[in-house]
Amino acid sequence: MGQRQALEAALTAQVTGERLAHTYRVVETARRLGRRHGADEGQVAVAALMHDYAKPLAPADLLREAERLGLTIDPVERAEPHLLHGPVAAGLLAERGLVTDPDVLQAIAAHTTGRAGMSLLEKILYVADYVEPGRRFPGVEVIRAEAEQSLDRALLHALEDSLVYLVQQGWLIHPGSVHARNWLLQTLRP
Amino acid sequence: MGQRQALEAALTAQVTGERLAHTYRVVETARRLGRRHGADEGQVAVAALMHDYAKPLAPADLLREAERLGLTIDPVERAEPHLLHGPVAAGLLAERGLVTDPDVLQAIAAHTTGRAGMSLLEKILYVADYVEPGRRFPGVEVIRAEAEQSLDRALLHALEDSLVYLVQQGWLIHPGSVHARNWLLQTLRP
Repeated sequence: MGQRQALEAALTAQVTGERLAHTYRVVETARRLGRRHGADEGQVAVAALMHDYAKPLAPADLLREAERLGLTIDPVERAEPHLLHGPVAAGLLAERGLVTDPDVLQAIAAHTTGRAGMSLLEKILYVADYVEPGRRFPGVEVIRAEAEQSLDRALLHALEDSLVYLVQQGWLIHPGSVHARNWLLQTLRP
Repeated sequence: MGQRQALEAALTAQVTGERLAHTYRVVETARRLGRRHGADEGQVAVAALMHDYAKPLAPADLLREAERLGLTIDPVERAEPHLLHGPVAAGLLAERGLVTDPDVLQAIAAHTTGRAGMSLLEKILYVADYVEPGRRFPGVEVIRAEAEQSLDRALLHALEDSLVYLVQQGWLIHPGSVHARNWLLQTLRP
């Protein structure tokens, strides 16, 4: 069994139904964005395929796994453990020998919150997850179109729309998203 | 010369014109909010009077004073040194022996950004600065009215309006404001 087959076997043992369909839409979107912006095809494919590997875990299980794996847990993550599904997926995939590439693991870890200093691969996964064709929220078409021209503009727009959405919903804001947005704003300033 | 006179002499040597008028509006607003919500009158008066003591300093001077005073400087403050006018005011007032009460100094330090775990005094100064009668931006009347009923609701609303405004303007967001907002949201949750 090749690496891709081993990964898909591990994935489909955990992720099913609409979540699996979302995963394959992210793979396609990330591949296209990756080609457009010059990312490594193999890294993009693995990162996208495995990004939601830990999403089916219940909040208490995410917290317990994060602690067992020795991850640093932000207070916002402790209050909203679903934010840990990226870091926990990266930890489990590494521990199980399924993914060893640190760049891919980092992209999986940061795909929900973002962080300051995101790599090209991290940006592609974050944006692909945000604009895959199943996403239908107001304004997604604008960010989808931006992603073809400027990955940074699309990422900034996605981070900012998320911040405003979290405020409107009364949900906690992960500090990593604010750091990512501040960092990107500064790198884009003329 | 009494303490109040000494403070006013020091203040008016640095702060003049509309900024001084703003200061006295904040003093009046903070006094009223302080009485309503049970804060110490003396602490409220001094914190409000001296909160913008360092605001006239130029960005380079704020940075240099912050370094000289040994303050921890956040990367966002380094990029936007005007955010340091609260912490630098607290540092200078302590150094010059003008204000010695640590609660008052803390309220002055945090009045622009907020922080997680704000005291009653810190909340009163932040909100008074936000809603003093000279403030005319859209939505201020709502927060002004909220401040009479619930200081926490008004503070949360002010922090959230600020976050959205910073996103709309394309300005950096201080992590302290996000921590303050997350913390307050959690304390207000039923």
